[in-house]
Amino acid sequence: MNPIYESLLSRKSVRVFEKRAVPDSIKEAVLNAAFQAPTAGNQMLYSIIDVTEENLKKKLSVTCDNQNFIAEAPIALIFLADSRRWLDAYEEAGLTARKPGAGDLLLSIQDAVIAAQNAVVAAESFGLGSCYIGDILENVEAVRKLLELDAYVVPVTMLVLGYPTDQQKVRKKPERFEKAYIVHENRYRRLALSDHREMFEKRAGQADFDYDEYMRKFCERKYMSEFSLEMTRSSKVYLKAFLDEPEEE
Amino acid sequence: MNPIYESLLSRKSVRVFEKRAVPDSIKEAVLNAAFQAPTAGNQMLYSIIDVTEENLKKKLSVTCDNQNFIAEAPIALIFLADSRRWLDAYEEAGLTARKPGAGDLLLSIQDAVIAAQNAVVAAESFGLGSCYIGDILENVEAVRKLLELDAYVVPVTMLVLGYPTDQQKVRKKPERFEKAYIVHENRYRRLALSDHREMFEKRAGQADFDYDEYMRKFCERKYMSEFSLEMTRSSKVYLKAFLDEPEEE
Repeated sequence: MNPIYESLLSRKSVRVFEKRAVPDSIKEAVLNAAFQAPTAGNQMLYSIIDVTEENLKKKLSVTCDNQNFIAEAPIALIFLADSRRWLDAYEEAGLTARKPGAGDLLLSIQDAVIAAQNAVVAAESFGLGSCYIGDILENVEAVRKLLELDAYVVPVTMLVLGYPTDQQKVRKKPERFEKAYIVHENRYRRLALSDHREMFEKRAGQADFDYDEYMRKFCERKYMSEFSLEMTRSSKVYLKAFLDEPEEE
Repeated sequence: MNPIYESLLSRKSVRVFEKRAVPDSIKEAVLNAAFQAPTAGNQMLYSIIDVTEENLKKKLSVTCDNQNFIAEAPIALIFLADSRRWLDAYEEAGLTARKPGAGDLLLSIQDAVIAAQNAVVAAESFGLGSCYIGDILENVEAVRKLLELDAYVVPVTMLVLGYPTDQQKVRKKPERFEKAYIVHENRYRRLALSDHREMFEKRAGQADFDYDEYMRKFCERKYMSEFSLEMTRSSKVYLKAFLDEPEEE
């Protein structure tokens, strides 16, 4: 097993960090790994906000579903899918280009996330732990104001990074689902309803695993919860700007 | 420089592959690296289609902007943002959940892309080259039919993989833009129009670089081109299913 593959397999999310700061040279290297990630047409369709103000980090920890550990993270990087960049580059060349659309948005989201994952992998190689904060998609109005975002700029994800505490280092990585449920050959295979039960039971690996109870709680906490409904409302506002339709009132 | 960081910096896209097949054990390891990637709430909100039928690969090379090299790639993996999976898992538990919305879509797209990038990094560690095919977003009607997709399943990206030819190995990796134009501190900074010119001139590193001409050609080829307009039309159809609005006729 080579060290790269090994690192990819063992990496797990870290939400509690040591107090010590991350040296600037390491932060630079993490950002550099992001820049060197694959990017559509070598365009780098993203921007990154490096959150260095403690007060701003604190405010974002509130807009991101009140997760205090965000405010405590030594590094917080927000990855923005940035279509404003391209409109302006065309304008500087005297060109009149169309408004960015759904395709541009999805391509730039990919660029941003690919860059973020390179940052995660690089960070891991330097002994830094990381956690994705999808909740940055929530509270569009507040976040647009805090970060002074353009309507064609979407904060796709936030990464928090820092040195993991000893407790975090020994925490067991959660098991994943088995390949048979995730990979299909040549065509999409909609799983049978009972496959889902089986998939979760196998992942749990405990005879007393109660699927119905697990899913009830999970659905309540992750899907029908306030933060999830807010994420969907807020994300829709971001998408609207790319869909050639009048903005919602 | 550690080997992980080094690998992230040197990785470049590969579009021409040797004829030899990739051993199954390597493909398994690449998929395994994808599974072990960070995933929101340990949900693995994606599915992967492993395209093994030569005929299907050929058809996809046509729907993906007629790029023949796709048909020649030993491995083609399609990463699907899969919200159908979750609806069905809830149903099996007897729960009535809301329709997936924009937030679920964006979260699942991230999950899919994070997994894809782990696959890319793992592949690189095994000597495999890779290329992202964003064009899989085009031709929604044909692709939905070919892959038998559900309306809540979006083919976010395709990866083609194989052993790079010698010519590909020595090809220079294209330069990226400088950090100053990509990373902003605490707030989004919309670049001045002239910054774009400067950003491209610095990247080109040639005294005779003609920004206006470069952008004119680029815009024509990448943004106002047929494939780009198609990607935006097609992507919009995928998004619609998540926006609580009637499907377009």
